[in-house]
Amino acid sequence: MVNFYIQHNSQETYFRNPFGAVRIGTEVEISIEVEGECEALLEIVRFNGSTETINMFIDKRIEGSNIIVYKGLIDTSKEVGLINYYFKIVKDNQVFYYGNNKNHLGGIGEIYVENVPMYQLTVYEDNKIPSWYKDGIIYQIFVDRFFNGNEDGRVNNPKENSFIYGSWYDEPLYIKDEEGKVIRWDFFGGNLLGVKKKLQYIKSLGVSIIYFNPIFESSSCHKYDTGDYKKIDSMYGDEQIFKGLCKEANKLGIKIILDGVFSHTGADSKYFNKYLKYKSLGAYNSKESPYYSWYRFSEYPDKYDSWWGFENQPNVDELNQSYMKYVITDYDSVINKWMRLGVSGWRLDVADELPDEFIECFKKKMRNIKPESVLIGEVWEDASNKISYGNKRKYLFGDELDSPTNYPLRDILISFFNKELTSYDFRKKLMSLYENYPKEVFYSTMNVLGTHDTKRIFTALNENLKLLQLAIIFQMTFPGVPLIYYGDEAGLTGGSDPMNRKTYPWGKEKLEILTWYRRLTSIRNTHEIFTKGDFKIYNTDPEVICFIRNYKDKIALIALNRCRDRSILIEIGNISGRYKDILSKDAIYYSANGTLKIELKSYEGRVLLNM
Amino acid sequence: MVNFYIQHNSQETYFRNPFGAVRIGTEVEISIEVEGECEALLEIVRFNGSTETINMFIDKRIEGSNIIVYKGLIDTSKEVGLINYYFKIVKDNQVFYYGNNKNHLGGIGEIYVENVPMYQLTVYEDNKIPSWYKDGIIYQIFVDRFFNGNEDGRVNNPKENSFIYGSWYDEPLYIKDEEGKVIRWDFFGGNLLGVKKKLQYIKSLGVSIIYFNPIFESSSCHKYDTGDYKKIDSMYGDEQIFKGLCKEANKLGIKIILDGVFSHTGADSKYFNKYLKYKSLGAYNSKESPYYSWYRFSEYPDKYDSWWGFENQPNVDELNQSYMKYVITDYDSVINKWMRLGVSGWRLDVADELPDEFIECFKKKMRNIKPESVLIGEVWEDASNKISYGNKRKYLFGDELDSPTNYPLRDILISFFNKELTSYDFRKKLMSLYENYPKEVFYSTMNVLGTHDTKRIFTALNENLKLLQLAIIFQMTFPGVPLIYYGDEAGLTGGSDPMNRKTYPWGKEKLEILTWYRRLTSIRNTHEIFTKGDFKIYNTDPEVICFIRNYKDKIALIALNRCRDRSILIEIGNISGRYKDILSKDAIYYSANGTLKIELKSYEGRVLLNM
Repeated sequence: MVNFYIQHNSQETYFRNPFGAVRIGTEVEISIEVEGECEALLEIVRFNGSTETINMFIDKRIEGSNIIVYKGLIDTSKEVGLINYYFKIVKDNQVFYYGNNKNHLGGIGEIYVENVPMYQLTVYEDNKIPSWYKDGIIYQIFVDRFFNGNEDGRVNNPKENSFIYGSWYDEPLYIKDEEGKVIRWDFFGGNLLGVKKKLQYIKSLGVSIIYFNPIFESSSCHKYDTGDYKKIDSMYGDEQIFKGLCKEANKLGIKIILDGVFSHTGADSKYFNKYLKYKSLGAYNSKESPYYSWYRFSEYPDKYDSWWGFENQPNVDELNQSYMKYVITDYDSVINKWMRLGVSGWRLDVADELPDEFIECFKKKMRNIKPESVLIGEVWEDASNKISYGNKRKYLFGDELDSPTNYPLRDILISFFNKELTSYDFRKKLMSLYENYPKEVFYSTMNVLGTHDTKRIFTALNENLKLLQLAIIFQMTFPGVPLIYYGDEAGLTGGSDPMNRKTYPWGKEKLEILTWYRRLTSIRNTHEIFTKGDFKIYNTDPEVICFIRNYKDKIALIALNRCRDRSILIEIGNISGRYKDILSKDAIYYSANGTLKIELKSYEGRVLLNM
Repeated sequence: MVNFYIQHNSQETYFRNPFGAVRIGTEVEISIEVEGECEALLEIVRFNGSTETINMFIDKRIEGSNIIVYKGLIDTSKEVGLINYYFKIVKDNQVFYYGNNKNHLGGIGEIYVENVPMYQLTVYEDNKIPSWYKDGIIYQIFVDRFFNGNEDGRVNNPKENSFIYGSWYDEPLYIKDEEGKVIRWDFFGGNLLGVKKKLQYIKSLGVSIIYFNPIFESSSCHKYDTGDYKKIDSMYGDEQIFKGLCKEANKLGIKIILDGVFSHTGADSKYFNKYLKYKSLGAYNSKESPYYSWYRFSEYPDKYDSWWGFENQPNVDELNQSYMKYVITDYDSVINKWMRLGVSGWRLDVADELPDEFIECFKKKMRNIKPESVLIGEVWEDASNKISYGNKRKYLFGDELDSPTNYPLRDILISFFNKELTSYDFRKKLMSLYENYPKEVFYSTMNVLGTHDTKRIFTALNENLKLLQLAIIFQMTFPGVPLIYYGDEAGLTGGSDPMNRKTYPWGKEKLEILTWYRRLTSIRNTHEIFTKGDFKIYNTDPEVICFIRNYKDKIALIALNRCRDRSILIEIGNISGRYKDILSKDAIYYSANGTLKIELKSYEGRVLLNM
């Protein structure tokens, strides 16, 4: 039993300074309060696995108490990556450990006698992320389901042995055999001409970036089984149309980001050519194929490594020289080709499957071609400490991703609104990300409420319009780049794949939702504070999320009450000035004695801005 | 043990005169040869179940033997239907029976001591079948799969929640759930405009009749689940197009026959309206529905009698007055409407499910509207003695069908060509039909080699082109109305449904087959003997089918050698004259001493015509 006071809080600068992730070389002060004299040791594990023990010195004694503050300094100049640490306290001939809490969330820790979880300190190299991205709003388009630009409704070049939906408004359906394998692909016929024709609409949403799900030739409707990296799928259009689309979009201030699927290709591809639909000599056809070395066969040609065991998506060896040249480094490489045509960034599909060296090389080349480009990575968890296939990943340390997909934020937001999480626990989980991510990255995370791989947000919130509106307020006032998954703004519903890939309901939009999105994106786009402002989140009431943003002389306060049937009065201290609710327009609040009191009606969300 | 000679052969006029089925009132002589004196009794079971015993008298004694011919007369004037008979022989205080052979094929019978199978004598009322039908050749069209007449390839009015094939040449596929239930219907987009555009092509096949699979509004691609009996399905076209098609076809000498599906409707129909897609008050929606009495509910509304248990095809009570009026007798009844628009006949789907009274009423009305019309019935076995649901059917006795589908002929032809049957057994089975069917009907049977409900003929013959050619020779030189199932003439292959419903392969026809069909239909259409001539089949060699046709002073002899690797010499006696092979054109044969000798090379078919 430990019966004396001891505390470290990684999220308070009093205990750890500076806050959060640090640029390489920054000296970090680590403090711990202990009741009474002791030997305090700061135990360090560096990213490369080496350990150090730092003797902490007495920094000060808390007046009127027996509490002593011990301090140690961490040298971060050796390498980027994670530094993990915990404390060893020797007192009265007994040894105690103090480490991270059991949820590994940072902040206040716990005392342990063994198996001590460590705190995380992220060390990164500077990585400037273009402001068009950080300040932007993304619209994600699954092309087949967005809009068919042909005036007569004709579907471009339907594939052999595939199905076209009878009506644009049909429910999506996978056509599977008895073993659950897709046997025919299903298409609605959306295409790039359709996107081009809807650019004004997209612009009207306040969007400045379009992220496309894959658009290269492939047999499926989702196109994650690439057939030819250098060709637009002929159902979607052609290079000319794509080029025109980029040009037109750029004119409207909209940048284009493509989905890069580099962990595998399609079995039905120019490279593998399992079904002999291509004229090339594929890896499946002959060991003499120029693409043979890209793949890993355990028994040629029918047994090969494939993505999640799906035979139609054979994995590639990303570090194979021929593959790297083809995708990245050749003069006419995949990224060269498309970026020259107008693409401003890439989203790396299943980043966890891609070796760090591949991502680094990709990033370097990308920035080489276009310094103002951006690299997004599909990561489902905290990307700072992700371990995939036993390896610690280097996504966020400067040489790789600019913007991880922020699924963790989505998860906790939905949990909060569905009352599975109090706002206090929400805050803890959020702070953990905030602490672990380089600030530049935290302000560039791709903040999704839903994507082609999740339930629709409206469905995740049980089609509760009020909660949806609160979620949108959060997304549009929070650091990170908001992503609108096509159709979310029109009130599309849908559970898991394929129901989350319904067509955009042209003519049947839920206007309440559409209008709400436009109001919130307009607020974000009008006030720099929402993209650039500092951020602080408060515990006010378990039912309320409350945070402020700060930028220059501006302060914004956002408060969201998830209760269906209860008004809640919240108070925020240490805040001054007069505030206007820029959502409801009329209401004005005063901070009295540095305390702002706000009554939030049931399901009410407030966005206050000082005047 | 029976150790004396006794014989009857129902197929020889020596034993039974006249041959085969007889018009009501015809006296039929029945003879039996018995070795030695006996008491010979002719035991009769009439159609209504009543029995009679006729004492046979000694007609003559065979010179130079102990054989006596006993004769009895059957009075057929009482009713149409079947008369069954067998013989009771009492000799030396012992009783024997002589009846039909164990295969019930007629011809030579057997002696029994008990359980004697009976011979069949069919008694019918005159039923004049229009010569356009008897002399015609039918082309069967499954509209969705034949031709899309829209120049831009657009599919007319695709249905909600259905699928359109990506390419005309895709393989058909049912889209089913895990329980095997179709969950989305699949369409290629063939339509009536397409048929209209291909009339010249159809005409070029020598065809004079088109039989359409159902074309009325319905949700499925097969349309046996009628949604509205009075409306052309909008994917197929409309009334105007259909009318124009009939007119155009008639100009070319082509009559139109429709598929009438009157044993059930669709659940998705104006009448049942299970899915509320119709504005009408359906039987499923309310007991007040005008259609409520058409259906049989065991538990309203969810449990109802349906076709083979398929919930999407609720059975109707065909004899319900309201239904009879709607389909048959009203001024604007279903048959009235379509026959006025240009239809010349009907094919009754699943005739076995339709009560005799319904078919009789239908036939009467049909002939009333158009005396020169024709009624076909879907029957899979010998239609003369069919028992369905415990009832003896009256299909062929004059008041019902003109033309049963001749699936039995198809079966034995395929069995013969696949060497599962010798030509001798083939002959026996064929003679049984010939004996049982009224001659007018035998000459009007719908002689199918395949339909939408069977394997494609080419597939049934293992894609053996030579055998296919022999089968076509048979079909086009035999009594009965040949039916070409769309695409058979182009060499389409396919096993069971849906593979037997592939699209017509425009531009990819197997020209060898197409040319062969045209030659044979041309031969049939040029020489009346093949439609009108008498028919006689010979036993020459087990590998050879050989039959002759006789008409006026013409004799045709058809011989088909199924052997892959063997020439066969056949001899036909009692035949005179000089013959020309009208297939190979050049060869000329002489009948020497009344015997014609023909050498048939392997897989060779001959069609000889006297000069």
